[in-house]
Amino acid sequence: MKVVALSGGVGGAKFADGLARVLPAEDLTIIVNTGDDFEHLGMRISPDLDTVVYTLAGLAHPETGWGRADESWSFIETLDVLGGPTWFRVGDRDLALHIERTRRLRAGEPLSGVTRDLARRMGVEATVLPMSDDPTPTFVLTEEGPLPFQEYFVARGWQPKVKGFRFEGMDRARPAPGVLQAIDQAQAVLLGPSNPWVSLDPILAVPGIREAMIGKRVVAVSPIVGGKALKGPAAKIFTELGVPPSAAAVASHYRGTLTDFVLDAVDRESESEIRGFGMKVWIADTIMRSVEDRTRLAGEVLSFLGLPVAERRAV
Amino acid sequence: MKVVALSGGVGGAKFADGLARVLPAEDLTIIVNTGDDFEHLGMRISPDLDTVVYTLAGLAHPETGWGRADESWSFIETLDVLGGPTWFRVGDRDLALHIERTRRLRAGEPLSGVTRDLARRMGVEATVLPMSDDPTPTFVLTEEGPLPFQEYFVARGWQPKVKGFRFEGMDRARPAPGVLQAIDQAQAVLLGPSNPWVSLDPILAVPGIREAMIGKRVVAVSPIVGGKALKGPAAKIFTELGVPPSAAAVASHYRGTLTDFVLDAVDRESESEIRGFGMKVWIADTIMRSVEDRTRLAGEVLSFLGLPVAERRAV
Repeated sequence: MKVVALSGGVGGAKFADGLARVLPAEDLTIIVNTGDDFEHLGMRISPDLDTVVYTLAGLAHPETGWGRADESWSFIETLDVLGGPTWFRVGDRDLALHIERTRRLRAGEPLSGVTRDLARRMGVEATVLPMSDDPTPTFVLTEEGPLPFQEYFVARGWQPKVKGFRFEGMDRARPAPGVLQAIDQAQAVLLGPSNPWVSLDPILAVPGIREAMIGKRVVAVSPIVGGKALKGPAAKIFTELGVPPSAAAVASHYRGTLTDFVLDAVDRESESEIRGFGMKVWIADTIMRSVEDRTRLAGEVLSFLGLPVAERRAV
Repeated sequence: MKVVALSGGVGGAKFADGLARVLPAEDLTIIVNTGDDFEHLGMRISPDLDTVVYTLAGLAHPETGWGRADESWSFIETLDVLGGPTWFRVGDRDLALHIERTRRLRAGEPLSGVTRDLARRMGVEATVLPMSDDPTPTFVLTEEGPLPFQEYFVARGWQPKVKGFRFEGMDRARPAPGVLQAIDQAQAVLLGPSNPWVSLDPILAVPGIREAMIGKRVVAVSPIVGGKALKGPAAKIFTELGVPPSAAAVASHYRGTLTDFVLDAVDRESESEIRGFGMKVWIADTIMRSVEDRTRLAGEVLSFLGLPVAERRAV
């Protein structure tokens, strides 16, 4: 019984961690957005991959949504004294991951191979794959012009109004080795509660990925609950694109791709509207405050699809 | 009254710090070996420049001879977990200097400009210059073949037997902007107690530097005391090249370049031999255990040359 999860950062990472706790490691492949990847201080940084790996390794900071819990900050403090760019907060331990990944990429290894090996060294047993080994940087098209994703997201605090997105290089990008095989073998593809526009759309845009999902059971957990995004700019972006943010808007966004939709109990009134999109709708408490919540939600979603849930791992 | 000091790492850096404490900042230029510079983990590392700047900034580790006193080690600990190369110990704060220097070099600034600015940001008032903005990597020619300097020095712990040296790219290297002017304006050029073979010879080998020193008062402080190097492989290299290590051997090595030589009191018996090389010989206690020692030795060396010593700064 194989399962594929598609993930961006925080919400998707928590859901993937829940899945890792209710599935045998060999049955779970997590395909992660790399549209946020960028070059910074000479390093290749992959924020969503890092958040997924740190979360599954039990190393993620419980509150920030990025970086590690056991972090120190000597590097960035000193960089500040030296007048270097400190807008992207890199911790001392986090730095080791960026520098070692960059070293191996420059030595000619693909991102997928480096990610698999580094994730294992951090104790992650499930397979974590970048959506592609090819760079496909996301540009946010704003009222002020196109902004590289991290500039929009971190440096500008997602304030400029969004008009659209461009996934540069996407037409020539190939799915990373293992991605299409994992989808092909999967009983179900699960879209975690990540930002539809900038986390999951890039994955679905990689040529071949959406096609591989045809005929599969595909379910999404809504990242919008009660009209609000739990974290990040998803709701703000819906509004700026002229769509009132709601779980139904998310479901509509994925029309034709999803067979099933998981709705938070607070959004129960949207059930029939989403059914109208040709999806089965399931109701759950989707907010993951604790590791127990992740495990429970992952188990419930598998149950909705009629998939067996393995013994729950210690949380 | 202008003075130029030539320096490698530890001993030269301590002497330069002594000079900085007895000379007005505008009168002191320190020209530093960059033959040890190398690329590591995607960063340009300049070990001697860093040691000089950290020492003058009061940030140097008092015992190791490299790195900072106020250091943390999260980065290298994590790099080890990730299976990365840890043979060159880089601290978290030290890393900021390497990364920021590399960032600015890649943006097109010369090493000399970056060094001057970063040194000032760390509170260094004297002028610190690399000998050249052009890379001139030192290779140690050993019985096992040529080794890049850091591989010989750090990874191999200076164990392979030395047959000679190669300063790659030296024939095309130009002195860094400001180097020839500083020598031209200087009343004296002072060679700190650094390794003659791998610290000072590279500086003297930069086309134009030795020529600029002709007719100047040029003094060296012996890095070999009682037949031993205070730190590092200088004595071992003399022996491997067939010369018994001694202060006189150092003086002989610089014959034709030096006008004056500072001998440690324990080597007093070599005084007449070194006079025979056409040098004035001065006796001092050259071992610098404390900041007071640096200040005293620097003041004494200036006095030997008949140069005025400024008010001593707080140590």
